[in-house]
Amino acid sequence: MDKLQRNERIGVLMKLLTDSPGKNFTLGSFMELIGSAKSTISEDIDIIQDIMNKFDLGIIESIPGASGGVRYIPAISDGMTANIINELRQELSKKERILPGGFLYMLDVIYNPKRIESIGRIFLSQFYKNDVDYVITVETKGIPLAFVTAKYLNVPLVIARHYNKATDGASVNINYVSGSSKKLQTMVLSLKALKKNSKLLFIDDFMKGGGTAKGIIELAKEFECEVTGIGVLIKTVSPSKKLVDNFFSLLTLDYVDEENGIINLRSSK
Amino acid sequence: MDKLQRNERIGVLMKLLTDSPGKNFTLGSFMELIGSAKSTISEDIDIIQDIMNKFDLGIIESIPGASGGVRYIPAISDGMTANIINELRQELSKKERILPGGFLYMLDVIYNPKRIESIGRIFLSQFYKNDVDYVITVETKGIPLAFVTAKYLNVPLVIARHYNKATDGASVNINYVSGSSKKLQTMVLSLKALKKNSKLLFIDDFMKGGGTAKGIIELAKEFECEVTGIGVLIKTVSPSKKLVDNFFSLLTLDYVDEENGIINLRSSK
Repeated sequence: MDKLQRNERIGVLMKLLTDSPGKNFTLGSFMELIGSAKSTISEDIDIIQDIMNKFDLGIIESIPGASGGVRYIPAISDGMTANIINELRQELSKKERILPGGFLYMLDVIYNPKRIESIGRIFLSQFYKNDVDYVITVETKGIPLAFVTAKYLNVPLVIARHYNKATDGASVNINYVSGSSKKLQTMVLSLKALKKNSKLLFIDDFMKGGGTAKGIIELAKEFECEVTGIGVLIKTVSPSKKLVDNFFSLLTLDYVDEENGIINLRSSK
Repeated sequence: MDKLQRNERIGVLMKLLTDSPGKNFTLGSFMELIGSAKSTISEDIDIIQDIMNKFDLGIIESIPGASGGVRYIPAISDGMTANIINELRQELSKKERILPGGFLYMLDVIYNPKRIESIGRIFLSQFYKNDVDYVITVETKGIPLAFVTAKYLNVPLVIARHYNKATDGASVNINYVSGSSKKLQTMVLSLKALKKNSKLLFIDDFMKGGGTAKGIIELAKEFECEVTGIGVLIKTVSPSKKLVDNFFSLLTLDYVDEENGIINLRSSK
């Protein structure tokens, strides 16, 4: 390949770094790929960091030492976080979203790739300094959000199910009580899904009583793993006492007034 | 903001374009963002296209006309497609994946963000010239792949469920017969999920008899929608007669010999 010019190098390094968030790239691997000297590539990386600062695209972290290098973290500024939360709040507060029983229709939002990616950047910013080996969720509604968060953290995604399937192989079943409805439910996870002594981040779309989160904590124990973080898109104000203590949420749902068509949703900050 | 230099412009345009596959960006919007002349930005885009060609990163498509612009399509070369399929074939053919009953353990692969993105690029390349309004899947195992394909096609994701939930609102239920086990199953989709007269791409991880795909076609009819494409990661050789005719698959599973620990899996091409 012909030697690349600086603008070409910036283009390809930007793409490679941002395609693989959290992945450690050694400068040596870049030298091999684009045939430039280490000092030249260091300057390129500095330019990329400047661009990221200007346009709120994230940060390039340097990892020192012999096996060190650089990695891209799609962290987001407080200002852009506030904008995203505010847009979500407005979208989810539209009264036509109210369903019988005071539920909120959110599927179009929580399955929308662009929205989920922006929410994922907020979760990433919250959790990337934690020690996370896996992102875990329970089927179904939280899967896109958990998937994007796992991608940004550069860890595998694990999905617990409600029923055992032949394609899971041997699995662990636990029973848990829904925090709000008090109904007994089952959660199933393949024995192959988690390595012992791993740290888990639980991601979900909604938390009411916290029963699902507590179920995940119990499930983790069966695998000799630990839940080190919990993130949900929306938590409800009531019940104020959840079954888990520490969790991060973007939005707080005060109440849904079905009769008058009012949704009271606010930023959790 | 100070005027950006070419290498900074290339960096930010590369990031913005590739962050939003399929999205039409007018040159005017870029002029506003980075304060350069149209001709300058056109040259920048040409450089980005050159970089993409060199590193197999996709294509920049020009959309002519007054509302025209450019958009990024993460299409992939035949050579890289063959590499990805071959790597998948090797990974999924490991004998320790064989489960009782001759099933294959694949969850670690089909929930892995990096692998799913590379498979998603192959599906994108296959289907982006089709007219697709939504990507649809059935919970649970196909969701990450369907999500990434939807993202690359710049369309919403829709997920049918097996049981009705209060958070779906009013929904359509259909019954369908599994193509292989002949069991009667139910598929549920919220009435709000699809607009009439839409074109759907069905994505799933596995096809045996084709019953699920046929179920999705029936479900689409109830919404006055049409399934214009079907893509699966793996199809089985047997039964050779599937319940649907036209579908795209990456890998073909000939057989799993549980006793001798042999998985016969090959590229579908």
